[in-house]
Amino acid sequence: MSFEHIHLRIPGPTPVAPRIQRAMNRPMVGHRSGEFSKMLMETLERAKRLFQTEQDIMVVSGSGTAGLEMAVANLVTPGDTVLVLVTGVFGDRFAKIAAAYGANVKRLDVEWGMGIDPDAVQEALTADPAIKAVFATQSETSTGVANDIEGIGKVVREFGKLFVVDAVSSLGAMELKMDEWGVDICVTGSQKALMLPPGLALIAVSELAWKAIDANQNPRFYLDLRAYKKSLKDQTTPYTPAVSLIYGLAESLAMLEEVGYENSFRRHLLMRDMVRAAVKALRLPFFTEETYASPTVTAVNGGGFDPEAVRKIMRQEFGIVLAGGQQHLKGKIFRIGHMGYMTPLEMLSTIAALEVALKKVGWEFELGSGVRAAQEVLLG
Amino acid sequence: MSFEHIHLRIPGPTPVAPRIQRAMNRPMVGHRSGEFSKMLMETLERAKRLFQTEQDIMVVSGSGTAGLEMAVANLVTPGDTVLVLVTGVFGDRFAKIAAAYGANVKRLDVEWGMGIDPDAVQEALTADPAIKAVFATQSETSTGVANDIEGIGKVVREFGKLFVVDAVSSLGAMELKMDEWGVDICVTGSQKALMLPPGLALIAVSELAWKAIDANQNPRFYLDLRAYKKSLKDQTTPYTPAVSLIYGLAESLAMLEEVGYENSFRRHLLMRDMVRAAVKALRLPFFTEETYASPTVTAVNGGGFDPEAVRKIMRQEFGIVLAGGQQHLKGKIFRIGHMGYMTPLEMLSTIAALEVALKKVGWEFELGSGVRAAQEVLLG
Repeated sequence: MSFEHIHLRIPGPTPVAPRIQRAMNRPMVGHRSGEFSKMLMETLERAKRLFQTEQDIMVVSGSGTAGLEMAVANLVTPGDTVLVLVTGVFGDRFAKIAAAYGANVKRLDVEWGMGIDPDAVQEALTADPAIKAVFATQSETSTGVANDIEGIGKVVREFGKLFVVDAVSSLGAMELKMDEWGVDICVTGSQKALMLPPGLALIAVSELAWKAIDANQNPRFYLDLRAYKKSLKDQTTPYTPAVSLIYGLAESLAMLEEVGYENSFRRHLLMRDMVRAAVKALRLPFFTEETYASPTVTAVNGGGFDPEAVRKIMRQEFGIVLAGGQQHLKGKIFRIGHMGYMTPLEMLSTIAALEVALKKVGWEFELGSGVRAAQEVLLG
Repeated sequence: MSFEHIHLRIPGPTPVAPRIQRAMNRPMVGHRSGEFSKMLMETLERAKRLFQTEQDIMVVSGSGTAGLEMAVANLVTPGDTVLVLVTGVFGDRFAKIAAAYGANVKRLDVEWGMGIDPDAVQEALTADPAIKAVFATQSETSTGVANDIEGIGKVVREFGKLFVVDAVSSLGAMELKMDEWGVDICVTGSQKALMLPPGLALIAVSELAWKAIDANQNPRFYLDLRAYKKSLKDQTTPYTPAVSLIYGLAESLAMLEEVGYENSFRRHLLMRDMVRAAVKALRLPFFTEETYASPTVTAVNGGGFDPEAVRKIMRQEFGIVLAGGQQHLKGKIFRIGHMGYMTPLEMLSTIAALEVALKKVGWEFELGSGVRAAQEVLLG
């Protein structure tokens, strides 16, 4: 199979939209030029609607993890007690970053596949008044879990703590009302719902969080939020930005506004519901507890079959790339990404191909039943 | 003028080579896939020839400054004494990053436009035996100065200190023999001689430097070199890489090898010499002391004319972008970048256009004399 025939159904990177690809092909410009500055500022202004915030949006050249570390490095001082809500690999990463910065990390762990109950956050905050900030993941891609950021935010606000949300794998695909839900720092990345290649992280900060950041003496330079804030006043970035990715970001946000954020959220929910209906019809066991099913990725339990064998057939016969399990879930689950530049049509083809692969590994079900279930969801 | 007609003659970002642009347009793949892993490892293996080292090359998604901070954050512990050789904005940046990490920073400053004399480094190291590491810039783009890394390296090695070199604006355009010259950490960026958009930094580390890095307890996560080293063993990166820029890097290194590094160095020297001959013929004052003239950028002093007016005409009439001065040189110099995807032909057109612009601002010289001087250099 030619390298070109690759259909990414993983929770990032997601396929790059052709319009975005063309935008990124524009000739390089000087990053200190007036043209670039104008485009950058218009784009960052536009990004406020993505975050549903009135705060400034800052952009850093780096992966989503650079954005997560930016939140920690600027907010946390050594010895600070922080509460990290861990529902999988990325919650765990937040905890590791906080520990690397000398925080006293309290973890609220749940069984992987489950989400966080806001009541449990209330208990944890009651038990330890020293907690300064709460870190949460909106869509935990390793387990297919979506956490209730609005509900958790209410509790965190009640206790007057800072609230940091990893929305890398969700913003643009799922509702997140930064200001209304009381999120103090929100981080996202380019290679998910924004339909761009990896390489950019976006971050927004509340006024309350700025106070803690300005008082923080941690060593930091490239990831120093104060430098990004200061540069915004000069309509620029402190360090050379990834110019072609910024071209792409401008196009991505324009596309999302044309589609409409509400419609994007609805399309992601529809794709999720199609996939889940198919998984159920095919008698495959879900990995993720239904209440917490993420709109961007669906995790399926192996058990009766080898998930790695299914992934291999999908890749070799159809060019469809599914994600495997991470850490202790390696070889135990597969994950179907339904995020970004993707529509219900791709769900139908993915499910149809999945049925073929499942037959080949000996899983028993009625051929076509998964596709039919997804079609029924689509027909409403 | 259409936005498409833009001719970058700045010391980065430089024009992206069309072949690289096409390579970057390849469809997205999963960054944990076998295909990507294979390409990444082949590319990093190839990059050893760029650095002239047998050490592993690591790649981080971020600007050149992220690479510089990686060197500091991993090497320097609070209270360490370091010597920073400052010849302009980027030497100054190294000093600022080191200070942010709590280093006791000794600066060896020279007048901007001058380079560092290795004897002065010898004196500084003799005067303060506490110095742990020396930080230098190979090509200081703010002043058009190239420092003698080989000569400085000899001195640093004699004293048994660690030697860190910012080769962001030079590697691939200028000789740098990392292992032979005793460079312990070498950093470069994508948007200069590599002909890529900004967004990647490459870094290589000597065995001596690894010892200091492994013993260093500084908080760090995204820029933690140990994580990059560990991931290399698994043929991957610790955090999501900027996939399309990695495609481009693979193509860039292939191009540089086809051209031949020696030929690339010679072409950059030729372009420099053409520009300098023209500047001299046009009776423009050089900003940079001749001994230290960088192969990648030439700085011209204003004085008899307004450099900003010249830049404006070049941009508006020809779409040619020259760089201005930075910090206290703002409005006092202009800089001509001759780096990356550029040939002697572009030097001739740039000089011809520059003559037109200079006439318009009232500078007196014989029209065509700059072009003729450059042609003579080209003819040899």
